[in-house]
Amino acid sequence: MGKEKGKLNVVGIGPGHHDHMTFRAKQAIQDSEVIIGYDTYVSLIEDIIIGKEVYRYPMTQEVDRANQAIEFAENGKVVSLVSSGDPGIYGMIGLVYEILAQKDWDQHNGIDVECIPGVSSLNSCAALIGSPLMTDFAVVSMSDLLVPWDIIIKRVEAAALGDYVTVIYNPASKKRIHQLRDTRDIFLKYRKPETPVAIVKGAYRESQSILITTLDKMLGYPEMLGMITTVIVGNSSTFNFKGMMINPRGYRSKYELVKETSAVPF
Amino acid sequence: MGKEKGKLNVVGIGPGHHDHMTFRAKQAIQDSEVIIGYDTYVSLIEDIIIGKEVYRYPMTQEVDRANQAIEFAENGKVVSLVSSGDPGIYGMIGLVYEILAQKDWDQHNGIDVECIPGVSSLNSCAALIGSPLMTDFAVVSMSDLLVPWDIIIKRVEAAALGDYVTVIYNPASKKRIHQLRDTRDIFLKYRKPETPVAIVKGAYRESQSILITTLDKMLGYPEMLGMITTVIVGNSSTFNFKGMMINPRGYRSKYELVKETSAVPF
Repeated sequence: MGKEKGKLNVVGIGPGHHDHMTFRAKQAIQDSEVIIGYDTYVSLIEDIIIGKEVYRYPMTQEVDRANQAIEFAENGKVVSLVSSGDPGIYGMIGLVYEILAQKDWDQHNGIDVECIPGVSSLNSCAALIGSPLMTDFAVVSMSDLLVPWDIIIKRVEAAALGDYVTVIYNPASKKRIHQLRDTRDIFLKYRKPETPVAIVKGAYRESQSILITTLDKMLGYPEMLGMITTVIVGNSSTFNFKGMMINPRGYRSKYELVKETSAVPF
Repeated sequence: MGKEKGKLNVVGIGPGHHDHMTFRAKQAIQDSEVIIGYDTYVSLIEDIIIGKEVYRYPMTQEVDRANQAIEFAENGKVVSLVSSGDPGIYGMIGLVYEILAQKDWDQHNGIDVECIPGVSSLNSCAALIGSPLMTDFAVVSMSDLLVPWDIIIKRVEAAALGDYVTVIYNPASKKRIHQLRDTRDIFLKYRKPETPVAIVKGAYRESQSILITTLDKMLGYPEMLGMITTVIVGNSSTFNFKGMMINPRGYRSKYELVKETSAVPF
């Protein structure tokens, strides 16, 4: 009898707090014999992986992590490769398929692979600051480790031109701060200085910190920037309503929203 | 003694299958006395709302739904306004804040409002078709009910220009099909006819149907288009790998992905 077919779950655990993990994510982790992930993410699920074979990695070893997970599955194990947010958004699923493609893997004959979607930073940050994503939006990562900066900056320009609300992943690190300045300068060519900008650090974690500022002032908060920060830049319709970032979708022009005569004008 | 302060949960239940709902979403629904939502979404959670006060609405009455939910909370009730996907992405939270703003609501003194993020169509569709969102992406809704078409088409042009992978919400309905044709024509000015395009209908529902086609052929499947369809248009780097839509993030140029000599070239 041949070796049993292994399975690789690529699991998004959401913003870090168990509450915002999906039932499928938890089930997949519980069904796995082997758990592999970046140390910080593995720590977030400590209580549901007791007794399992667990491999914790430092941050920069994504290729090793993905290879090890694939090899365990090839050897018949059920494996969960865990990451925060959604593995389908700038996440580990891409690297997994890049490696599998090099190995000439086939989804019908090779190991089973299941990508389990989760609540990504764009979902969690939007929920925490108001309603910024009621209109079309662009999502851009400022990390130029794997993508040349001239491509990223071209995308920022297109987002500014198209009046997209823009969600910025990996806005800055200690060694990398010019990108956010360049980005701000491009947006200032197209949008008013007082355009609302949200900076969210550690969404749904104990360290959560939220700041609503404006395009011209957004660089004034270096302590808010880092690996777990997401920035949302409003478009021409975005406004700050009592500390929240709001994007109307046009209901007001089409419907009478409140019937009471005591209503205060919007 | 004054009336007890009510609470309004605006809950995203994910793509429809309980598995991809978050723990927080389920908990909020269970903690609520009143459940309000579009009939189809309420049906998806029938088993966890037994014994509650439930209001089901037809599709087009969003303003009534939101007003009723707010009024119950103003009267001291704990209410869940449920919707599929994520209420923060083209969802009900925007309308809720638009109405509350008209009523001069304040987040510190008024009813409590909690937006509970969920797995939106972009998250679920990406997970089902491969790894299309490893690079920067734009999200555009084709619905011109509340947003003028000339604004939408300007955004499509910017997304095409910026080489964004593009996620299209509400691509077409029976009465509205020209938008997707116009969109395809704009992308064809910037991208190759064989650019991969994914059409996903009813992600994670029993009726789920997935098709990977190309930019030049994407209009040939009218039976796949409708209210629960999402379309993802690849960018210049996207490729079809054995029926999956893959976007590399550049690891191959920077790292040796597979060490075995038996590896097949990517």
